[in-house]
Amino acid sequence: MNIGAIEAGGTKFVCGIGNEHGEIFEKISIPTRNPVETIKDVIAFFDGKEIDRMGIGSFGPIQVNRDQSDYGTILETPKTAWKYFPLLQTIKSYFPKDMPFEVDTDVNAAAFGELKWGAAKGLDSCVYFTVGTGIGAGAVIDGKIVHGLLHPEAGHMFVKRHPKDDFVGSCPYHGDCLEGLAAGTSMKERWGKAGVDIHNEEAWEMEAYYLAQTAINALLTYSPEKIIFGGGVLNHPGLIEKVREQFSKLLNGYIKKDEVIKNVENYIVLPGLGSEAGLKGSLALVL
Amino acid sequence: MNIGAIEAGGTKFVCGIGNEHGEIFEKISIPTRNPVETIKDVIAFFDGKEIDRMGIGSFGPIQVNRDQSDYGTILETPKTAWKYFPLLQTIKSYFPKDMPFEVDTDVNAAAFGELKWGAAKGLDSCVYFTVGTGIGAGAVIDGKIVHGLLHPEAGHMFVKRHPKDDFVGSCPYHGDCLEGLAAGTSMKERWGKAGVDIHNEEAWEMEAYYLAQTAINALLTYSPEKIIFGGGVLNHPGLIEKVREQFSKLLNGYIKKDEVIKNVENYIVLPGLGSEAGLKGSLALVL
Ligand SMILES: Nc1ncnc2c1ncn2[C@@H]1O[C@H](COP(=O)(O)OP(=O)(O)O)[C@@H](O)[C@H]1O
Ligand SMILES: Nc1ncnc2c1ncn2[C@@H]1O[C@H](COP(=O)(O)OP(=O)(O)O)[C@@H](O)[C@H]1O
Ligand SMILES: [Zn+2]
Ligand SMILES: [Zn+2]
Repeated sequence: MNIGAIEAGGTKFVCGIGNEHGEIFEKISIPTRNPVETIKDVIAFFDGKEIDRMGIGSFGPIQVNRDQSDYGTILETPKTAWKYFPLLQTIKSYFPKDMPFEVDTDVNAAAFGELKWGAAKGLDSCVYFTVGTGIGAGAVIDGKIVHGLLHPEAGHMFVKRHPKDDFVGSCPYHGDCLEGLAAGTSMKERWGKAGVDIHNEEAWEMEAYYLAQTAINALLTYSPEKIIFGGGVLNHPGLIEKVREQFSKLLNGYIKKDEVIKNVENYIVLPGLGSEAGLKGSLALVL
Repeated sequence: MNIGAIEAGGTKFVCGIGNEHGEIFEKISIPTRNPVETIKDVIAFFDGKEIDRMGIGSFGPIQVNRDQSDYGTILETPKTAWKYFPLLQTIKSYFPKDMPFEVDTDVNAAAFGELKWGAAKGLDSCVYFTVGTGIGAGAVIDGKIVHGLLHPEAGHMFVKRHPKDDFVGSCPYHGDCLEGLAAGTSMKERWGKAGVDIHNEEAWEMEAYYLAQTAINALLTYSPEKIIFGGGVLNHPGLIEKVREQFSKLLNGYIKKDEVIKNVENYIVLPGLGSEAGLKGSLALVL
């Protein structure tokens, strides 16, 4: 079976074709501009290629409830050109009427891909955080992607402030929510340079302190079997180890499960699918 | 059908008999002592009564995974007499071998009961927080109670500190986690008297600030259709209104759903089943 996959991000749309084993045969990266230009390139990529179905993992907020008439429509977003853009309907219109489509958020798709073929393979639950320009979160519980009123937006949860941190926070909505304190943008504003150029030990201790709380709050709410951290900021060498260390310290033995206490290096991990988690997860949506 | 229900709490065990419509015919409250004395009274209550099945909602941590051999056993707990007590196996041994039993946490049961017959009736998801001596949390997503590695323990999540709060926090594990800052015990330590005697406006603003973040973090992780606050502390007149107010202020329009923005008084609510949420929820577990 040939399966189309689109990872629709704010910076780029990655389109690919693969199969039910999560193998990707070919892919392309398209810079995100306005919907018309972007979708034109997306359609051009798929033009003339035989695909049987298609999964789409998109930036949010997006309607993920299949029972709603606006399923697959981008909701209210600061990306004004994309506000209320019917992403699914537009793409669907270029393909046979009965071709199966599935849409979810890019991070829910990544979580699902990791569960299917990556770091959480064989498990029933995992949470996936991407720490990049912003912070996104996806979750799978009992084998199913978490939806409800909307979809997880746990990048904006509140956490406690590091005692040495007096940065006001960069989130336009909340100031010092998690994203406002720990996303790439926040690090840049606090330390005056991009993540890759920050070599100050204190900065990374602080970052680990926030991501450790992220993992703890995820553990205490979702109770997942695996917590995965991806995104550009996790490229910093040693960060994931620091997160585990602070996680154990802050959690302080409260959840008495070997997975969490004795085996934290297998509990808090980097993505098994690396940068392809989003694309492969989008593909997995439609299996 | 006659259904037995046990709400096994740290202070009292409430036992009842009811039916599949959530009607309770009779119930009894038994003070919690050591397992032997307590279970003796529980069994005495059910003795000679015809019941077809039984649901148990227990204080945690407890094994809620049916596939594990220790299903229904209390895990490591500060209540030392109960540590590793096989609650389900012990109770089960007094009933016919093929009688169906189900066990979950008291708060997961309460959430499930509220979904079935209470404040979240007709919905697919809800989160239930009980703010009493401690803070407990239960969650239902997509009609199913949340389990994974264990069960939710969201009472201990981290939140940001109120700018005027310099209380160190009362949680023996975490100091200033949510429970350490906002449970009844914490209020008592911070203000020097029990919740019912605190009439200081600032105390209740602070409490609302923490419970509002609780609701926000729940919304951003689980994306539930309803958030329910129960427990003794919520008896304080006007508290739930203050929580809604601070919720809207702190969330600052980030989740653009009418349910949350325009209709918050129907989104953050008191239990529909009042103090019977736990017992009725325990009953509902086994339907
Ligand atoms: N080696 C690195 N160390 C620390 N931060 C990094 C590193 N590489 C990239 N980043 C940060 O990651 C962020 C970009 O994340 P990325 O996931 O690639 O993009 P986006 O979130 O826009 O999709 C930027 O804030 C950048 O500074
Ligand atoms: N009217 C009230 N106003 C504020 N706090 C109250 C009120 N009634 C009870 N409380 C507080 O609620 C807590 C007990 O909660 P409860 O849910 O009844 O018990 P538990 O958590 O032990 O099961 C105590 O800390 C008590 O001070
Ligand atoms: Zn925010
Ligand atoms: Zn705690």
